[in-house]
Amino acid sequence: MHLFVYSPLSVSARKHLQKQLPAGTSVTFANDLAVDHQFSAFQEAEVLMGNPPPAWFAAGPPPLLHFWQIDSAGFERYRHLELNIPVANMGDFFAWPCAETMVGGLLALYRHLPELAVLQSQKKWVGGAFVRNRAGLLRGKRVVVLGSGAIGQAVRQQLSGFECQVQLLARTDAQAQLHTKEELKAALPETDIVINTLPGSAEGFFSADLVQAMRPGSIYASVGRGNTTDEPALLKLLQAGYLGGAVLDVTAIEPLPADNPLWSLPNVLLTQHTGGGQALEDESKVDVLLHNLEQLHTGQPLENLVELSRGY
Amino acid sequence: MHLFVYSPLSVSARKHLQKQLPAGTSVTFANDLAVDHQFSAFQEAEVLMGNPPPAWFAAGPPPLLHFWQIDSAGFERYRHLELNIPVANMGDFFAWPCAETMVGGLLALYRHLPELAVLQSQKKWVGGAFVRNRAGLLRGKRVVVLGSGAIGQAVRQQLSGFECQVQLLARTDAQAQLHTKEELKAALPETDIVINTLPGSAEGFFSADLVQAMRPGSIYASVGRGNTTDEPALLKLLQAGYLGGAVLDVTAIEPLPADNPLWSLPNVLLTQHTGGGQALEDESKVDVLLHNLEQLHTGQPLENLVELSRGY
Repeated sequence: MHLFVYSPLSVSARKHLQKQLPAGTSVTFANDLAVDHQFSAFQEAEVLMGNPPPAWFAAGPPPLLHFWQIDSAGFERYRHLELNIPVANMGDFFAWPCAETMVGGLLALYRHLPELAVLQSQKKWVGGAFVRNRAGLLRGKRVVVLGSGAIGQAVRQQLSGFECQVQLLARTDAQAQLHTKEELKAALPETDIVINTLPGSAEGFFSADLVQAMRPGSIYASVGRGNTTDEPALLKLLQAGYLGGAVLDVTAIEPLPADNPLWSLPNVLLTQHTGGGQALEDESKVDVLLHNLEQLHTGQPLENLVELSRGY
Repeated sequence: MHLFVYSPLSVSARKHLQKQLPAGTSVTFANDLAVDHQFSAFQEAEVLMGNPPPAWFAAGPPPLLHFWQIDSAGFERYRHLELNIPVANMGDFFAWPCAETMVGGLLALYRHLPELAVLQSQKKWVGGAFVRNRAGLLRGKRVVVLGSGAIGQAVRQQLSGFECQVQLLARTDAQAQLHTKEELKAALPETDIVINTLPGSAEGFFSADLVQAMRPGSIYASVGRGNTTDEPALLKLLQAGYLGGAVLDVTAIEPLPADNPLWSLPNVLLTQHTGGGQALEDESKVDVLLHNLEQLHTGQPLENLVELSRGY
């Protein structure tokens, strides 16, 4: 079997791949070839990893190709292709870390971990009593997640051990519990936590009237795009102490200007757009490929098949 | 029905109780009575909330008593009593917050939230790239929990959404996966996270040889008593960068002395014995009582029945 890797993998991820390739598999890395030799090497692929230019598929996929592992979550550039082979993407590979930052950020707010971290940096011992009477719990909270995509699903899964009531909002997803702005607005007074996972196309969705419909003491968390939240309205209710706090991985303007009041509001945690990250990212992508190769080899179902595979 | 409340409830928790008492229920608070009138009021209780002196039961329970809600997790002082009525304790009421501090602390370490909180206190924008390549995930980690009591159970439940493999260690609990120090030592090289929930009676249990048997890069978290960990051995391997980090709600000496290196080690989060806390603690205790009264009233099973109820 011949594997063509278009992904620009790190040196260590290449070693990681080569060490674990199934017996009888050869591999060519596009990065080792001059640019004008890459397309012909692509044409010889039996398995493809990575996201080559869509134009390369203009005359159809490589003749021997029987599996394509896209190395991103998105695959909009390839939507027009009709391929008769299985195609998988990275599934919730990028979504899961965002969700961990959200859930970790919420637990951190309830348990006052940011405050304790700052005290630790000053070597100040305050002891249990200082925090205990103000500490809250994630347990049993009523949560609305804006968006039912991979991040929203991962958030719901991660919350499953905390006895929370979780509702997802998505306009067209039948599995979501809320579908319209009106339904959301009606739910907000009985909601303890709102988690925004919306894409940039939902510009301005969480508008001032929705911010104002939130329950007193409730928490807003966002790993969606910065333009999806009415930030001035949010800031106003945080400053007034009406809201209980916020975990913001994104802001409307990044870097956040030094004079923005969000920097110093109590119960606001700024995670500075770190949500999607994970160490050894290339190695982990290789692991996704290797897992699917193993599934192919043993006739098990592939993971994270995407709609391009309709013909398969 | 007559309720006798021995618990020294806050003013707001008393109001909370009185507002929600089932119709036809009267209530007496021990705190409203002179000390020498309390015992006779206790004798008239049909429902009892709180932890009165064990000697009050010397001649048997109050004749009309049919339910006793203990307001703590522990009830060792009452073990010798034989009562023919249901008795409930607070279950994981104090354990759950400890577990949230542990799981929140672990997520915080993996997502670098303490570092981000300190940067926020300095209004320093670093942006995603600064953290993303170092960030880890809780997902799929192999976890050993020392202790299978209420905290250990709560930790396991909270981890259930993160695809972790969780093993509990307890000498005599048949439902635990590990039972001896030897089994633990054998498991540590394949363990990513150790969470200590041991009571003070397990003094010195996590000894230097166990610390040294931990996997390189693995994380130690403790909400157990400070005397159950060999702290110098732990500190040494944290300083050497052999371990990946630690979340410590407890230390051998509290307050932690200013010259202790734990204060300033990267990847160490000190939560300063705040783990067990929660706001509105008295109100929440009242909620546990009210829930059980409702269960009694509708003939549903009571929650958190304890062994004193064997005769029931």
